[in-house]
Amino acid sequence: MHAERTCLCESSGVCGVMPRYALKVEYHGAGFVGWQRQKEHPSIQGAIEAALAKLEPAEHTIVAAGRTDAGVHGLAQVAHVDLTQDWQPFRLSEALNYHLRNHRIAINQCVVAGDDFHARFSARERRYLFRLISRRAPLTHERGLAWHVKRKLDAGAMQAGADRLLGRHDFTTFRSTICQAESPVKSLDELRVEEIELPNGTEFRFHVRARSFLHNQVRSFIGTLEQVGAGSWSPDDVTKALGARDRSACGPVSPPQGLYLAGVGYPTDPFKS
Amino acid sequence: MHAERTCLCESSGVCGVMPRYALKVEYHGAGFVGWQRQKEHPSIQGAIEAALAKLEPAEHTIVAAGRTDAGVHGLAQVAHVDLTQDWQPFRLSEALNYHLRNHRIAINQCVVAGDDFHARFSARERRYLFRLISRRAPLTHERGLAWHVKRKLDAGAMQAGADRLLGRHDFTTFRSTICQAESPVKSLDELRVEEIELPNGTEFRFHVRARSFLHNQVRSFIGTLEQVGAGSWSPDDVTKALGARDRSACGPVSPPQGLYLAGVGYPTDPFKS
Repeated sequence: MHAERTCLCESSGVCGVMPRYALKVEYHGAGFVGWQRQKEHPSIQGAIEAALAKLEPAEHTIVAAGRTDAGVHGLAQVAHVDLTQDWQPFRLSEALNYHLRNHRIAINQCVVAGDDFHARFSARERRYLFRLISRRAPLTHERGLAWHVKRKLDAGAMQAGADRLLGRHDFTTFRSTICQAESPVKSLDELRVEEIELPNGTEFRFHVRARSFLHNQVRSFIGTLEQVGAGSWSPDDVTKALGARDRSACGPVSPPQGLYLAGVGYPTDPFKS
Repeated sequence: MHAERTCLCESSGVCGVMPRYALKVEYHGAGFVGWQRQKEHPSIQGAIEAALAKLEPAEHTIVAAGRTDAGVHGLAQVAHVDLTQDWQPFRLSEALNYHLRNHRIAINQCVVAGDDFHARFSARERRYLFRLISRRAPLTHERGLAWHVKRKLDAGAMQAGADRLLGRHDFTTFRSTICQAESPVKSLDELRVEEIELPNGTEFRFHVRARSFLHNQVRSFIGTLEQVGAGSWSPDDVTKALGARDRSACGPVSPPQGLYLAGVGYPTDPFKS
């Protein structure tokens, strides 16, 4: 099963193969430049790779299902890594959490995955959650964990706008100009608006699901739907913006702190034994 | 209605009386020494009084329903303050929130209250929420917002232990040695354990309600009930600890960051118009 990879741990005598591990990762996006490693800037990838180097001194490269932007949170990001030793997965996650204790990064699950598992290329679905809290007063406990909007929003209108985006479309309007995807055509499988009455204000949770996303696509959706919720845009304006296939037709892009990578779907869930 | 107080604002010509305002206050307890003003240490009371001084230059003293400890959060603390000007309550809360913007303190409601309203002495009920999250991995988004417990807990056992505390008792066991209350006898009206399955772990929410509380009483309850949830204590041990009327019979006191002052009850709710 590990035949095509070289084992580097002969001297340790622990194993004869290079096992691959899948990690389910949770993180607070604040204070990081995003998932992706950047020289001299704190990244989630860099922090986990540094923790791995405490366990097996070497350069490690982990691969994630989605490279979240600066400030964006992870609830159940999935990453894989190849190690030289045969770690008992629970002990590996405990050791990583120990070394990550000064970061707001946690390994919630760890399993041995097959050689053919690839956190990014095997993924068939990404799920995002976006939290928006509408109220007059500034946020206290949710500061950095949700987008604070002062004006009142209409969930029905936002859902009507969201429905215009479902299905397979050219999403050029909702794509960052620096997006590197080959094609702007994607299928949006779900964009559901949930309304939760809080003791002080209203929370709107947007549940978004697709096989894959363009850069800034979710935040472009939410920023546009907030316009619809406030009555500045109509659902028809969303259809027009989508049809324009023009980045300048997009509404404002929402800030990152409301966005969470909530889950990744695979043909076979590596975390279910 | 304001006859017995002196109006200081004759020169402004705005009003002829000293109106009293009731504030509903939300705050993140981290970084504060607690509600109560302390010279040279940041307190919630001090921050709000400083904000008031920006609106009406003077020394202000606000009175709260409950003086929460360092690290304890407010969801709906109630405070009152006497000002010299007749503020439109919504404008007053907006102005305070503006001056509080660099703190994690928010005024969620503001109303004109009668002279006879006293945030502390008129209160007939205090409600607390305690959030405990049980899971192996460290907390990320909820860090500082809940007590993290690594071991598994049994909600049924904790509820059975909690039931032993309901009613009127001498709560000396569950009272800080520095508590200044005249009597250790209090009536506990509710201590309900709610279990919420999270994607990663389990959250236990404790809903606690009484006319008033002793110092550290809720945190002493929760620390003791955690022992019951883990199986280290039985519900009978809770009864024995209560009966001992001895501080040393208490379980460990839980940390402050899971505790929220969730609400205050008055004979007539000043915030309901």
